[in-house]
Amino acid sequence: MVRETTTLGAIDTAFSSTDHPQGRASEAEARRAGARPIVLAVDAMSGEHGPQAVVEAVASLGETDGACRAILFGQPDVLAPYAARVAADGAKHIELRRADGVVPMDAGPRDAVRVGQGSSMKLALEAVSAGEADVAFSAGNTAALMTMAARELKLVASAAKPAIAALWPSRNPAGFNVVLDMGAGLDADAEALTGFGVMGAAYARLTLGVEAPRIGLLNVGAEKMKGHANLRAAAQSLEAATRASDGALGRFIGFVEGDQISSSDVDVVVTDGFTGNVALKSAEGTARLIAGYAREAFSGGLLRRAAAAIAYPALSALRRRMDPRRVNGGVFLGLNGAVVKSHSAADAIALGSALRLASTIGQRNLVGAVRSALAEATPDSQYHATEAVLDRAAGRVGKV
Amino acid sequence: MVRETTTLGAIDTAFSSTDHPQGRASEAEARRAGARPIVLAVDAMSGEHGPQAVVEAVASLGETDGACRAILFGQPDVLAPYAARVAADGAKHIELRRADGVVPMDAGPRDAVRVGQGSSMKLALEAVSAGEADVAFSAGNTAALMTMAARELKLVASAAKPAIAALWPSRNPAGFNVVLDMGAGLDADAEALTGFGVMGAAYARLTLGVEAPRIGLLNVGAEKMKGHANLRAAAQSLEAATRASDGALGRFIGFVEGDQISSSDVDVVVTDGFTGNVALKSAEGTARLIAGYAREAFSGGLLRRAAAAIAYPALSALRRRMDPRRVNGGVFLGLNGAVVKSHSAADAIALGSALRLASTIGQRNLVGAVRSALAEATPDSQYHATEAVLDRAAGRVGKV
Repeated sequence: MVRETTTLGAIDTAFSSTDHPQGRASEAEARRAGARPIVLAVDAMSGEHGPQAVVEAVASLGETDGACRAILFGQPDVLAPYAARVAADGAKHIELRRADGVVPMDAGPRDAVRVGQGSSMKLALEAVSAGEADVAFSAGNTAALMTMAARELKLVASAAKPAIAALWPSRNPAGFNVVLDMGAGLDADAEALTGFGVMGAAYARLTLGVEAPRIGLLNVGAEKMKGHANLRAAAQSLEAATRASDGALGRFIGFVEGDQISSSDVDVVVTDGFTGNVALKSAEGTARLIAGYAREAFSGGLLRRAAAAIAYPALSALRRRMDPRRVNGGVFLGLNGAVVKSHSAADAIALGSALRLASTIGQRNLVGAVRSALAEATPDSQYHATEAVLDRAAGRVGKV
Repeated sequence: MVRETTTLGAIDTAFSSTDHPQGRASEAEARRAGARPIVLAVDAMSGEHGPQAVVEAVASLGETDGACRAILFGQPDVLAPYAARVAADGAKHIELRRADGVVPMDAGPRDAVRVGQGSSMKLALEAVSAGEADVAFSAGNTAALMTMAARELKLVASAAKPAIAALWPSRNPAGFNVVLDMGAGLDADAEALTGFGVMGAAYARLTLGVEAPRIGLLNVGAEKMKGHANLRAAAQSLEAATRASDGALGRFIGFVEGDQISSSDVDVVVTDGFTGNVALKSAEGTARLIAGYAREAFSGGLLRRAAAAIAYPALSALRRRMDPRRVNGGVFLGLNGAVVKSHSAADAIALGSALRLASTIGQRNLVGAVRSALAEATPDSQYHATEAVLDRAAGRVGKV
């Protein structure tokens, strides 16, 4: 692992880094226990708004969240202009680290792995795998990030497949539902869908505070005989896995339809990555269309514009609730380490939302919660939560 | 075929019905040529708002569209209360016909075929298959309607699979895009998706007036290597089918993503029935969520309510554009006869939109346009448009 603390500007190392992996692992434990701030490993070379937006978002995070520090990975010449600024701000919670490569947005997953060595994305993942950071963060190429994360952090022993979970605006008290998979893969068999349900419920409990999350399986009708065979098999398997847990793994409520994703009927909506991606983007397109209608309705004639001025507080309340930047951040579930993927078009505000989400899941140890839930859901697995932890620690010692 | 003109009330037969099928077929030709009104065969027993909403919608259609007549199929005792009213209104364009059965909303497709004999749904389809009506209309069980329609009207010779097409609000000048399949089936292979593209383009040309519709294939990314293998095969096949036609079959623009369904990037969006259904319902759910946000933004404090009053014209313009009732009506494509399926929750206004759509596709002979387009797209097919017409006529004579 090539890692070089940057010499750009007068940025201090935000926390003492040791080269002893077991030392790092116990540091990570200490951070999760609240004794030290959570550390985010940030791919500063990612996102359409460039490093400036990332630096801004990280800096603003420090102001609101003292329990969080960030290591920014990026190319020295690109980060140079921000180094002085970060130093001037006295942002002691940010550290800049040199990364020589960048994973292109249009790279296929295989190319990304090949060209990704030493890239800002890869180094951020390595920081998590080494226990130096708690959550890796990138606004880059999703497929590349997922492929490299799966290689670097490895699948949790009792997970069939990783998934990307999103928070979806809903009529529930918390204001959001959890939807997964949003595109870690394309397909998902019954076993994978069952795992998604269990992982999604753990995520909903930790971030939305729902005690026994209601899990629904996305289908084209609520009737038992609807949809593909793998959905019917997944329904049986989710029912079996959750029934015994008395709500600890969530409660399976059966099939739900697309219009229920944003309803209060359900807390966790499970689907394959292809369908999840289409559903999310279809919803985004609809929100954008309606925003366009609203702009047109309140423009044109003088009277309409006057109405818009008078209705301004109501309209801005509406705009705030519809703002897609509020809900930025796909969380990778099922890996032995936390990864948050921001929308690549995210600006500093949207990046800030995703970074706060990253900090939250680090503080609440989402990875541990997902690992325990999966182990409980598959009691016949040869691995159990504690064993998985041991395996992982052993693997890390061997690798570093 | 058991058919009995109702004796309920003093309703005249709206047009002279002959029992000679060839006479009927040439009548259908005359109607399409504009010499006689288009005839809709309406399942009056369908929809959650009951026969009253259907009768109201049909009656209002007559007032605005003199070129359209309707045969309403329903149970005599249920339709009785409306018969007198229809007569009193002098609605000479409506005829009531006896149907003894009703297809339940929760019947599976197979059950529906079994119990569907003599039902209002089946008789409406038979009226189209016999050439007595131009378009069958129902707000009932979609799966049952599609199954019975495929049996009664048969697949067009060069169609791989039927599809349900919906008009989807968009930023295009016409205000809508065509999306299919919305749930005729679950899956679609490359051949079926290619046919959907060609049929969708014919529909877009006829109803939206787009000369050379841009066809996009729904995927999780625009890059050529994204998505399932069948999508990549369909992309090649759609490219080949449309390239030679010089726009007559539409222009294939490659993969599109979910947020482009409502954009002006594309006119026809092609996908399988499962994905199409999820995308549509996800969009509906989002629109409903935002409508809820808007209600909340403009309620609460006195000031907010005052703002709502002043902004009333703008808000109602917005509400009109968001009203899902404006775009009601799924059109079945690929069958030898036109069928329109209304949303089952449709009220009289929404039913009216769908009936006007049915009238339009009857007048513009959508079935003929789809048949020609499919024949042109598959020149190596053993059937051609004219042969298909002859085959169909022969089949009908043999069957009736």
